[in-house]
Amino acid sequence: MATIDVPEQVSVLADAEALRKACKGWGTDEKAIISVLGHRNAVQRKQIRLAYEDLYQEDLIKRLESELSGDFEKAVYRWILDPADRDAVLANVAIKKLSPDHHVIVEISCTRSPEELLAVRRAYQARYKHSLEEDDLRPSEIAPTSIDITTSNRGGQSDSGGLRSSRHIKEVKGCRSLVPEMLSDDQLLVALVSAFRYDGEEINTRVANSEAKILHEAVKDKEFNHEEIIRILSTRSKMQLMATFNRYRDDHGTTITKNLEGDSGDEFLKTLRATIRCLNDPKKYFEKVLRNSIRRVGTDEDALTRVIVTRAEKDLKDIKELYYKRNSVPLDQAVAKDTTGDYKALLLTLLGKED
Amino acid sequence: MATIDVPEQVSVLADAEALRKACKGWGTDEKAIISVLGHRNAVQRKQIRLAYEDLYQEDLIKRLESELSGDFEKAVYRWILDPADRDAVLANVAIKKLSPDHHVIVEISCTRSPEELLAVRRAYQARYKHSLEEDDLRPSEIAPTSIDITTSNRGGQSDSGGLRSSRHIKEVKGCRSLVPEMLSDDQLLVALVSAFRYDGEEINTRVANSEAKILHEAVKDKEFNHEEIIRILSTRSKMQLMATFNRYRDDHGTTITKNLEGDSGDEFLKTLRATIRCLNDPKKYFEKVLRNSIRRVGTDEDALTRVIVTRAEKDLKDIKELYYKRNSVPLDQAVAKDTTGDYKALLLTLLGKED
Repeated sequence: MATIDVPEQVSVLADAEALRKACKGWGTDEKAIISVLGHRNAVQRKQIRLAYEDLYQEDLIKRLESELSGDFEKAVYRWILDPADRDAVLANVAIKKLSPDHHVIVEISCTRSPEELLAVRRAYQARYKHSLEEDDLRPSEIAPTSIDITTSNRGGQSDSGGLRSSRHIKEVKGCRSLVPEMLSDDQLLVALVSAFRYDGEEINTRVANSEAKILHEAVKDKEFNHEEIIRILSTRSKMQLMATFNRYRDDHGTTITKNLEGDSGDEFLKTLRATIRCLNDPKKYFEKVLRNSIRRVGTDEDALTRVIVTRAEKDLKDIKELYYKRNSVPLDQAVAKDTTGDYKALLLTLLGKED
Repeated sequence: MATIDVPEQVSVLADAEALRKACKGWGTDEKAIISVLGHRNAVQRKQIRLAYEDLYQEDLIKRLESELSGDFEKAVYRWILDPADRDAVLANVAIKKLSPDHHVIVEISCTRSPEELLAVRRAYQARYKHSLEEDDLRPSEIAPTSIDITTSNRGGQSDSGGLRSSRHIKEVKGCRSLVPEMLSDDQLLVALVSAFRYDGEEINTRVANSEAKILHEAVKDKEFNHEEIIRILSTRSKMQLMATFNRYRDDHGTTITKNLEGDSGDEFLKTLRATIRCLNDPKKYFEKVLRNSIRRVGTDEDALTRVIVTRAEKDLKDIKELYYKRNSVPLDQAVAKDTTGDYKALLLTLLGKED
């Protein structure tokens, strides 16, 4: 269940006017911005943007970006976007990081519904003029080997970063354009992003049995990046995978994620565990992301904002309950302790705090 | 351009009545069926089906199936379906063959637009209750290794066939549930089916240069099933790939498909060539499928029907022109020579012959 509190009657025009007033003149009325946007759902926020543009011939998002700053600006920006467009932005930011954040890609690929993931891929292409899958393979790192370094006609977007960049650098340095062994982290991510899983209820018990066996063989032999693991995790429906993971536990007395614990420095293993947790129990996964984002020395605002903003209209109420059970502290209390100012006020509003 | 000839004014009700009349009583009026359905586009055919069901509480498709037979029945059945649903059926038939027909999967994945391919994947799931990608990996062949052979709850659909079946059999016989070396035919097909390419105009010249080089290295070293080839062919936009293939030809004085000719018994190489031809010049590809389907001793009706039915509303006019240029015989003449009866009459109608 959702946490945001939306009034029964909403006037999109009045909202646009209130936001204009909050932005006008000296200083900005952040409280007014929160009290409007923090209580509107995705459809309403979109209507407000359209009404605002109609009334004032100005892009509301750009205006807010110029008025606000820091974590608060980031959170407002993420919140106001359409969910699919927001995921496209989150994925792009994660990929472009100096050390790309694979967990965000896994999270978006595996916790959204098949149709939602398609919408993200569509939004990504509309925004960045190439596919999300291609951004696993950014071109700039291989440029030094090419003869003609013509500037591409892609306006604005950066060519740096990318999930596969370190590999391409390796290839270039090794004076060989092809590396025979696979780096399956890329392969796993591309397969997860490309998935369009069957979303129905029907499962096949026989497949669950045989694939639990295949997974166990691979895990036992420490062949974590085996093609079969990637194939199973990226093509099977979520219901089917739950049956397979249950079978695994029944047959071997322990969960597959437990069996995958080990070398904490192994990035592929980490990505694999996140994948299984996102597919098997997304709410539990999100609880853990929140817990880690707060528990760290120095809050991880990116993760905190991401989970609250993306789940507030979905299942944040359930995630809050899990958080309380696991940590014996209410989530809003933990968030309030770790954040300040308008940023704190927005997060607490999205968490369902009454004004 | 399309070949079918659709009148400006169409009455869906009158069409439904005409079809009912054609099916009623002793014998069937095949000519009447062709003169209605052969001159209606996909939207109209759908409306006719709905109107027919409304009027007579009977499924038009089922009725036609019971009235017709042979190649004519198959062609009518394929023609009357929604294009996405038809592709789902074609893909399923191709996969379930004793020796699966990979070319059909390549054709559907690479000649349809990204949104059309998504519609096919959606239709496939609605029809078969699992994803098209999963059918690369049919479960029944691995069943002998599993302990509990509980019957699955999937009604109706067959568990046999599948693109990966031969491999799974190999695994079972080899008493090893994982085969370390990759069979990239499967990998290529799954990647192509999962593709959701950027469909815009923007291309990156630098990428074209560097990837033409990567492709050439792989081809030179005969590493045809290299991960990089699959990655490039399954993620890049068609415009981008055309630029890459052009660059390849400019740099090396020959096309990549020419460089891929060789061992005619190599199935992977064949699939790879079909992929590149479908992506680079689909009309030319379809002309060749038609040519081969007619030229054979014993016409290949499946291929002939498939191309005519799937292209009649799209680009069959252009394909006809290519056919004439290449063979110095008009396509309808060649089709008329190789087919008979109602089947021949339907194909010629779809090819735009005036009644």
